[in-house]
Amino acid sequence: MENMSEKITFPDGREVDIHDFIAFMYGLSRSDVDVLHLLLENKDKIDADQIAEKLKVTKASVSKSLNSLLDKGLIERDKSEEDQKKKGRPSYIYWVDKDKLYAKLEKDLEKLAGTIREGLEKHIS
Amino acid sequence: MENMSEKITFPDGREVDIHDFIAFMYGLSRSDVDVLHLLLENKDKIDADQIAEKLKVTKASVSKSLNSLLDKGLIERDKSEEDQKKKGRPSYIYWVDKDKLYAKLEKDLEKLAGTIREGLEKHIS
Repeated sequence: MENMSEKITFPDGREVDIHDFIAFMYGLSRSDVDVLHLLLENKDKIDADQIAEKLKVTKASVSKSLNSLLDKGLIERDKSEEDQKKKGRPSYIYWVDKDKLYAKLEKDLEKLAGTIREGLEKHIS
Repeated sequence: MENMSEKITFPDGREVDIHDFIAFMYGLSRSDVDVLHLLLENKDKIDADQIAEKLKVTKASVSKSLNSLLDKGLIERDKSEEDQKKKGRPSYIYWVDKDKLYAKLEKDLEKLAGTIREGLEKHIS
């Protein structure tokens, strides 16, 4: 989905930045959004050290955001291939599956609409 | 919908304040949200002067928010009955039709899910 627009047209006609929208839907911190943004722009899978370097933040901050984004199902990770040969703790490389991310967004919006509908039906009945 | 919860459970399990959610969906300012909140809590229809007094803000600020909320279809207004007898510019009283507001929210979330789906389908085809 390389050419997917960074803006979503909301029902009232406003153009909303996709990062702001995802941040709101999943309660992301500013740091989480920065990491997600970088992964969305980056074509290659990258590790936490590379992310920290590019964003000029600590690895601890990056790791916290990566774990949060993984927990929420917004990013993917693999074991680093280089790492297979070494001993010690495995290291990981991260990326975003954009089709999966947008399909998740769509599903979660439908779910949210259902939550609102249930609230309405309870009231009316 | 007097007992409708002020919180909505989002797909990731977070409880989100309904005002924050509506503010994000419709791009409301802090002042717009304050006016909407007051109208949601208030059982009677009230006019702009009463709203300004309760919120301790200028009538100009209240009028701006009321017009914005009306434009976006989030609140309702009637001509003030008292006013029918007087001459001059009509004055208005405002309120929220909660069923209508929640039905609108549901419809707009479905629409937004459709926008995301179209983006995905264009990419896949």
